[in-house]
Amino acid sequence: MATATQTVSVLTAEELLKHLQGHRRLTRRTIEAFPEDKLFHFSVGGMRPFADMAFEFIGMAIPIVNGVTTGKWEKFAGEKPSTKADLLRLWDEQTAALDEKFPNIPPHRFAEVDTAFGQWTSPGIGTIQYAIDNEIHHRGQGYVYLRALGIEPPHFWERE
Amino acid sequence: MATATQTVSVLTAEELLKHLQGHRRLTRRTIEAFPEDKLFHFSVGGMRPFADMAFEFIGMAIPIVNGVTTGKWEKFAGEKPSTKADLLRLWDEQTAALDEKFPNIPPHRFAEVDTAFGQWTSPGIGTIQYAIDNEIHHRGQGYVYLRALGIEPPHFWERE
Repeated sequence: MATATQTVSVLTAEELLKHLQGHRRLTRRTIEAFPEDKLFHFSVGGMRPFADMAFEFIGMAIPIVNGVTTGKWEKFAGEKPSTKADLLRLWDEQTAALDEKFPNIPPHRFAEVDTAFGQWTSPGIGTIQYAIDNEIHHRGQGYVYLRALGIEPPHFWERE
Repeated sequence: MATATQTVSVLTAEELLKHLQGHRRLTRRTIEAFPEDKLFHFSVGGMRPFADMAFEFIGMAIPIVNGVTTGKWEKFAGEKPSTKADLLRLWDEQTAALDEKFPNIPPHRFAEVDTAFGQWTSPGIGTIQYAIDNEIHHRGQGYVYLRALGIEPPHFWERE
């Protein structure tokens, strides 16, 4: 059924990248807020430590942008960092790589349906949104870990 | 600086509403997963119980859609429900109201900068994204509460 809203564009690719990088800056600050040992070993309710969640985000960001760009879905090949400094270094490499790669996504690929990593069938935009939402979701869990440790998390609304 | 990506539309208003309602369905299942007393009284790390977070989402959803639509920013006037059944009833009322109101947002208001509730200056789309992101963030915290209670949270990837 055709309605007016179907054709109203609310977000451009450039704005989406800005939104993504804003969230990644907040996640970086969340990683930084953890004491090193707690980052790798502390959790609540039998869940994963925040370093594992952060490495999951790293495993999604560039591989998803590559997949949406090319149709080839290749998992992140790097090893999980074992120190906070190495994790942040890898994070920063991906920040630069995202700025470089994201603008090369062919426009039609945002709407085109594809199966990410042989498993998740969605338009490209949906897969990118899923990566962002997944990062917000687990970062929120990291906030609980920080609170349980008596540490004030970064302000959720600050993205610069 | 004009680049190709600036003009690539990646999301329509209709897709944004669908995305929002998918997240709200997942949040509804998260509310349902809590035993009544835990919903209103349990938390981790000195944080708010999940019912308070859910009521915050209710306080944002329709008031933000109204504000983006009209430029008038009026807080949610209702009282906080004191039972799970009443919370879910209010949730479902807002689900229907969102479906009705969202398509009436004037197209230009997504890009237009406004100050939401006299405090948050952003284009309309940014304010709507903030509400969705805030819900994902705190719902993720609700997942930790559920895990700490030994309860399996709903699947994050299920949105229907």
